[in-house]
Amino acid sequence: MDKKISVAVVGASGYAGEELIRLLIRHPNVEIKVITSRQYDGKGVETVFPRFTGLNLKFAAPDVAQIARDCEVAFLALPHGLASEFALPLLQAGVKVIDISADFRLKSTAKYKEYYKEDHPSPEMLQQAVYGQPELYREKLRSANLIACAGCYPTSSILPTAPLLAAGLVYTDDIIISSMSGVSGAGRKVDLPYIFPECNESLKCYAPSKHRHLPEIEQELAFAAGIPELAINFVPHLVPVNRGINSTIFLKAKPDCTIEKIAAVYEQAYGKERFVRVLPAGTLADTKYVTMSNCCDISYTLDKHTNRVIVNGVIDNLTKGASGQAVQCMNIRMGFEESAGLL
Amino acid sequence: MDKKISVAVVGASGYAGEELIRLLIRHPNVEIKVITSRQYDGKGVETVFPRFTGLNLKFAAPDVAQIARDCEVAFLALPHGLASEFALPLLQAGVKVIDISADFRLKSTAKYKEYYKEDHPSPEMLQQAVYGQPELYREKLRSANLIACAGCYPTSSILPTAPLLAAGLVYTDDIIISSMSGVSGAGRKVDLPYIFPECNESLKCYAPSKHRHLPEIEQELAFAAGIPELAINFVPHLVPVNRGINSTIFLKAKPDCTIEKIAAVYEQAYGKERFVRVLPAGTLADTKYVTMSNCCDISYTLDKHTNRVIVNGVIDNLTKGASGQAVQCMNIRMGFEESAGLL
Amino acid sequence: MDKKISVAVVGASGYAGEELIRLLIRHPNVEIKVITSRQYDGKGVETVFPRFTGLNLKFAAPDVAQIARDCEVAFLALPHGLASEFALPLLQAGVKVIDISADFRLKSTAKYKEYYKEDHPSPEMLQQAVYGQPELYREKLRSANLIACAGCYPTSSILPTAPLLAAGLVYTDDIIISSMSGVSGAGRKVDLPYIFPECNESLKCYAPSKHRHLPEIEQELAFAAGIPELAINFVPHLVPVNRGINSTIFLKAKPDCTIEKIAAVYEQAYGKERFVRVLPAGTLADTKYVTMSNCCDISYTLDKHTNRVIVNGVIDNLTKGASGQAVQCMNIRMGFEESAGLL
Amino acid sequence: MDKKISVAVVGASGYAGEELIRLLIRHPNVEIKVITSRQYDGKGVETVFPRFTGLNLKFAAPDVAQIARDCEVAFLALPHGLASEFALPLLQAGVKVIDISADFRLKSTAKYKEYYKEDHPSPEMLQQAVYGQPELYREKLRSANLIACAGCYPTSSILPTAPLLAAGLVYTDDIIISSMSGVSGAGRKVDLPYIFPECNESLKCYAPSKHRHLPEIEQELAFAAGIPELAINFVPHLVPVNRGINSTIFLKAKPDCTIEKIAAVYEQAYGKERFVRVLPAGTLADTKYVTMSNCCDISYTLDKHTNRVIVNGVIDNLTKGASGQAVQCMNIRMGFEESAGLL
Repeated sequence: MDKKISVAVVGASGYAGEELIRLLIRHPNVEIKVITSRQYDGKGVETVFPRFTGLNLKFAAPDVAQIARDCEVAFLALPHGLASEFALPLLQAGVKVIDISADFRLKSTAKYKEYYKEDHPSPEMLQQAVYGQPELYREKLRSANLIACAGCYPTSSILPTAPLLAAGLVYTDDIIISSMSGVSGAGRKVDLPYIFPECNESLKCYAPSKHRHLPEIEQELAFAAGIPELAINFVPHLVPVNRGINSTIFLKAKPDCTIEKIAAVYEQAYGKERFVRVLPAGTLADTKYVTMSNCCDISYTLDKHTNRVIVNGVIDNLTKGASGQAVQCMNIRMGFEESAGLL
Repeated sequence: MDKKISVAVVGASGYAGEELIRLLIRHPNVEIKVITSRQYDGKGVETVFPRFTGLNLKFAAPDVAQIARDCEVAFLALPHGLASEFALPLLQAGVKVIDISADFRLKSTAKYKEYYKEDHPSPEMLQQAVYGQPELYREKLRSANLIACAGCYPTSSILPTAPLLAAGLVYTDDIIISSMSGVSGAGRKVDLPYIFPECNESLKCYAPSKHRHLPEIEQELAFAAGIPELAINFVPHLVPVNRGINSTIFLKAKPDCTIEKIAAVYEQAYGKERFVRVLPAGTLADTKYVTMSNCCDISYTLDKHTNRVIVNGVIDNLTKGASGQAVQCMNIRMGFEESAGLL
Repeated sequence: MDKKISVAVVGASGYAGEELIRLLIRHPNVEIKVITSRQYDGKGVETVFPRFTGLNLKFAAPDVAQIARDCEVAFLALPHGLASEFALPLLQAGVKVIDISADFRLKSTAKYKEYYKEDHPSPEMLQQAVYGQPELYREKLRSANLIACAGCYPTSSILPTAPLLAAGLVYTDDIIISSMSGVSGAGRKVDLPYIFPECNESLKCYAPSKHRHLPEIEQELAFAAGIPELAINFVPHLVPVNRGINSTIFLKAKPDCTIEKIAAVYEQAYGKERFVRVLPAGTLADTKYVTMSNCCDISYTLDKHTNRVIVNGVIDNLTKGASGQAVQCMNIRMGFEESAGLL
Repeated sequence: MDKKISVAVVGASGYAGEELIRLLIRHPNVEIKVITSRQYDGKGVETVFPRFTGLNLKFAAPDVAQIARDCEVAFLALPHGLASEFALPLLQAGVKVIDISADFRLKSTAKYKEYYKEDHPSPEMLQQAVYGQPELYREKLRSANLIACAGCYPTSSILPTAPLLAAGLVYTDDIIISSMSGVSGAGRKVDLPYIFPECNESLKCYAPSKHRHLPEIEQELAFAAGIPELAINFVPHLVPVNRGINSTIFLKAKPDCTIEKIAAVYEQAYGKERFVRVLPAGTLADTKYVTMSNCCDISYTLDKHTNRVIVNGVIDNLTKGASGQAVQCMNIRMGFEESAGLL
């Protein structure tokens, strides 16, 4: 029998929480000890998610002392702002924190304030947090106690783009990302724009120049390019699917960029990765091939007549874009098989 | 009682044909005399489209002589290549031809061959054809006998972009169009990629650097900019809705471009147009507001941090993107109220 | 020029209100004078429904005196309970009231209380109200001042069933109705069960033995059968489409019932009706053939091995199931062409 | 390390084949040795199902000798008629055959001919075949060499109904089943009715009195009731979801039937089952809670005013309705943990 650790899912009544439960109940090294929800305190998990009928788990109001006593790892699937309220005391109590919210992703408190309209609640922890994108930060994650999991749009954008920037094949000042997301990306939010008749048979862009994932993508692409900062266009669209993000990325090729070099760069970056798959020439990325999986698929082409590299990155926003990636980060941190619970 | 002309719909068993019938049966100045389909020759229109149960119309095999005898106008809703076979004899017989296919849209036979992989079947007619985009070519359409209706992606892209290029507010060498289309855009085609379980819960791009609508968009944007040619990126995506195209267009602003100037240019271009609506600031274009209508809605923003103008154009691909625009062109050509049958 | 009457749409910010506006703005005999919404008082209709951009209409808080002064007809598209608050004063002020809510459909105050859990607010008006199902009550509607439009599930169920009961071809004590409805049937309601990820890829029944439309259907089928009352099973299901109801009705055939007799009964009942179409043998009713139209399509079969007649009735829940039928009722009441504004 | 057997998936390029591969690649006791497809002979599995990129599996033309040499178990995911061509030689060669097609489900060759319009190809094997519905035939399955897996509609109907009939709580001559199925239920079939724009925003019934699953359901319900035969109504509907069947079953209660007795009967039948979940009162079955799982969920109510029991059975048509159930049957036959590979 494998060794099992006890974990908590804090904020377990949303879609990221549901996905964490789905993944963790079959994880060979994990036992879910605590799932929290103020709203459903005392109720069985199956009252909120009948899918889990038969599972013996009850929601409890979040209690840091109890989590600290019982759990080695806490996943935070909370709205931004709230996550940091829990992260600090949990860390102080020795619990490893894997945060799915946006609270600890940005290194710059100025950027945080610009996009979230308030001062960062615990700026001292920003430098401590490791960005939860395993393919880019695997070594740092091995010892991280506070992991700020990459966002969904960022994951679908950064993984395909970072290697090309790092290799110097494309320019850093001409990057455009046009993304489509399924509605679960908005969370389990009860709001007019998300009711079925408003979303179905609808295609729309939103926040075309100031989405909160923009500074996160810019931060990571600048790191990849080895420069202090860069500016990109990122336009998200809401489309009528449940799960899945497809990001189409337009990059300006440098003169010596060739399709062979791109292939070589991707092979070196991801050839041995389990959860990033660079598709063979002729196959275009499609979200349906990654839904319910932890994979990010990448396809690409070099358009000679404009000298642009066009890359597609697709993920399941709830798995590789949130809870699956969180589990992958935990696996790395705890020394488990990296794919444990994710196949 | 209004005067009525007799019209034919050639190739009436596809989605563009269905939409033409839907629009024309309530058009005050039109009587549908002929609908053709080889496959359904002799069958009532309701056997293919039960929606039209109660309508007294039968499919017939296409017969140029009969159409020429009975009809003033023929709409061609045929696959490309086939349309030109009908256009020439119909024109010679004095029938006005409104073609929804791509056969007469490109002025360059070289481009036609590059993208359609065969010589153009009747190059002598290319110069005669007028491009069926009423807001740009209204005057020419008044006397055109061969109208090559603009394609669906092109309509959603050209209408929002052309005025900005014509006004010199944006550069001509940095244009990126990322579009999403509903599945009816593929026609009533019975092919594996279009069956429901393949399209539903799927987001994918296709033909990222060589879609057949690319040269058409480039041709018209070059005309608008007043230059011989230009090169753009155009990436279409297939998404699970029935109807609707949303094109997000990224344009590089010139130094003196301001949001006020953009607004003024659009106001001048479309302020009096019935079927192009520039949405007020704060409202973003959504296909669901134009489905089953002949409108193209436009919204835009100027992203200062990259100096890009981001424009959204949305249409119903079967109405403003095909059959509705064809009816609008006919109305102009025949001197009818331009919105007749389209409200 | 046709004579035009002025009308009000009270409660115009929901889906039934939107559909009323869509239909009435192209109605040749109607001018919309007032649209009411407390929530959007003072705002243009396009702020709630961008589809209507370009239309010069503003929401106002409901004001009975103003409506009475300016309008001949008021459509009530309000939640049940609220409708009766407006109906009485409007009627007293001489306005004809066409109510889309359920407030005046049931003749029995006891049934109202049983299903709506409160006393009927104005029982004296129940006998005065005429049930708004034109194909069954056309003559009474010609002079009705209070019209209680038939509900959506009831319309899809009663129209196919009533003629067979009236003709005595089927038993009255063995009637089962299994219906599917699109999500707009729940109204523009912001509630967890109606957000996109909860409805999409979901098939579920609800209220299997006590839906509020049950007593309405039973009342009308009893009338049709000429008996005081009857009891049926009615089970609605929520399915992921925007618009459309499909009701499958299982009826026990009497010994002398034949497929020819059924056909004859339907022909007599609906052969001359514009908005009820009995499909030819071999064609099965499909909601997509009636969406955005005021038609109810009916198909049927006689299953010899169980002696059951299986009938399908399909409608667009917002058109024939609500606003279209309301307009049809108004047309009858006001002496307009019955199909005015509905083709 | 668990012992592993080698298996073949014959006809692996359809949706049932894809689902078998999905399940079997993570099955602890199984190695997929052979996947067959004439059409894709020699191609990697990822060319048909990019979801499986990274999996080292190639399609081969079916070769009975090779399968017999290499595999203990063969799953047949073939169209009906074709399955029996493979079953006989495989059985003779000592391979255990688990057939997902309809070929060996009916005990009566007359019924087979009535519904499939041809003589049964190998009637001698019908009596040998064990019906693959583990909750009803578990003991027989332990030694079955030819397993005829229950169909999708039948599974969703028989599991909820059989115990009530067996317990004598409901009548056998008044059974009505109204089902809805996602489009993957039609297989990966390229045919006009299944393309996206024909299915989306469409609700329709089909084959209302003669679907091929009807005799299968009747056979099993008669067995459950302990009578030679019975006749039911079964009406399937096609609705726009990918996966999922919801069957609403109307049963006439005998005088002594109570809600408590129904609960007790279900508890006895399924209280210890892993894959049949009878939901607590107040929770209604919803396909979205069982998609991608091997569960059949059941909810029920007793409608006193008509004395009908209304039961809902929901499954994922590709899992419990096809490939998951096939794996469950294999697990029983081979002595594996019954839930192996299915959690």
